[in-house]
Amino acid sequence: MARTLYELAGADPDRRFSPFCWRTRFALAHKRLDAEGTPWRFTEKDKLAFSGQGLVPVLVDGNETITDSWRIAEWLEAKHPTPTLLNSAAFTRFINAWADTVLHPALARLIVKDIHDCLAPADQAYFRTTREARFGASLEAVQATRDAELPAFRKLFGPVRAVLATQPWLGGAAPDYTDYILLGSLQWARCTSPFRLFAEDDAVFAWRARGFALFGGMATEAVGYPA
Amino acid sequence: MARTLYELAGADPDRRFSPFCWRTRFALAHKRLDAEGTPWRFTEKDKLAFSGQGLVPVLVDGNETITDSWRIAEWLEAKHPTPTLLNSAAFTRFINAWADTVLHPALARLIVKDIHDCLAPADQAYFRTTREARFGASLEAVQATRDAELPAFRKLFGPVRAVLATQPWLGGAAPDYTDYILLGSLQWARCTSPFRLFAEDDAVFAWRARGFALFGGMATEAVGYPA
Repeated sequence: MARTLYELAGADPDRRFSPFCWRTRFALAHKRLDAEGTPWRFTEKDKLAFSGQGLVPVLVDGNETITDSWRIAEWLEAKHPTPTLLNSAAFTRFINAWADTVLHPALARLIVKDIHDCLAPADQAYFRTTREARFGASLEAVQATRDAELPAFRKLFGPVRAVLATQPWLGGAAPDYTDYILLGSLQWARCTSPFRLFAEDDAVFAWRARGFALFGGMATEAVGYPA
Repeated sequence: MARTLYELAGADPDRRFSPFCWRTRFALAHKRLDAEGTPWRFTEKDKLAFSGQGLVPVLVDGNETITDSWRIAEWLEAKHPTPTLLNSAAFTRFINAWADTVLHPALARLIVKDIHDCLAPADQAYFRTTREARFGASLEAVQATRDAELPAFRKLFGPVRAVLATQPWLGGAAPDYTDYILLGSLQWARCTSPFRLFAEDDAVFAWRARGFALFGGMATEAVGYPA
């Protein structure tokens, strides 16, 4: 059965950098499912009209169209129960909301100009307008303070480190969607920016390296920068 | 078998306000265990010397002395396996670290002068000196901006709300230590400060009310303010 995943792409159509699309990429790989990736750009809303909304990821699986990364994860779990993706639904949901509302706003400030520079020209204009309105400052001004903001960014991962001190993955002995959510966020950065987020002696650094190496180095081999 | 819990107290020895002691209080109640509470004050380090350290909670259970709220929770779980307290160890550990490193620093700023005013005179001097050094400002100055800081404080609970949108407790269908950690933090505020933390239409408000009503209204009936 044909399976297609619409993924946000940069000027280079192989630069697939959306953290939400990476959540789905990891979830598909976890379930050992293939999906053809179709590049999509911010300004191509018409290409997603069939899905009834304008955001990626969109997964088309045979006759079914599923949108929103969380709903896709639940759909995959229901349709392909093993291996389990959502072992602790409350924890995973908490991390999902934490990534969206805490981690992403902080991380975006560190890489927003770099993201812009990866985009196709039409997307650059769209991105600059919408993000500068959101931040109330130019992309250049936001990113200019990233060295000063890095310690606070790293501190956000304190509770993650507390978990990794006692088990190798947030999911336990093996990774699950809880890991993939945060790996997707960090892959968003790796795909778009050369900025180094973590010190090499940080447990998060080692966990990220193990996560990016999963599934034959799926994340490491994607178009991007060294992590 | 005699069981004693050393608990931080205010000038009124019945005002037991430590968030860490409340974690243990809830954990004991969850296990249907009684413990005599012994009031302890910040400046009475000598009273805890037998435990080999100077912080509460300290639980003395027969011949055993256990310190640190997390270690007490694990000890209780091992010694009294049912009902389960730690259903999802990773989630609970994440929340424990999140409360300690994110929630408490933000919440302390809203109530720190009120806490001071509840303390016995010797503790007031100790508290003012140590906390003013930590904040780099007078207790009065820190708390003076709490109305402006309240929206950001409430926003911290976004990921908690995401979980409560799909289940009644962080622990699932029933409360567990994940809930008790955060209820302990909010009981810290209720015991010391009349400041209203949540709007009545907030899901966190309703969850807190249900949590404080557990175990015969254990938290609600403790010395403090209306929540």
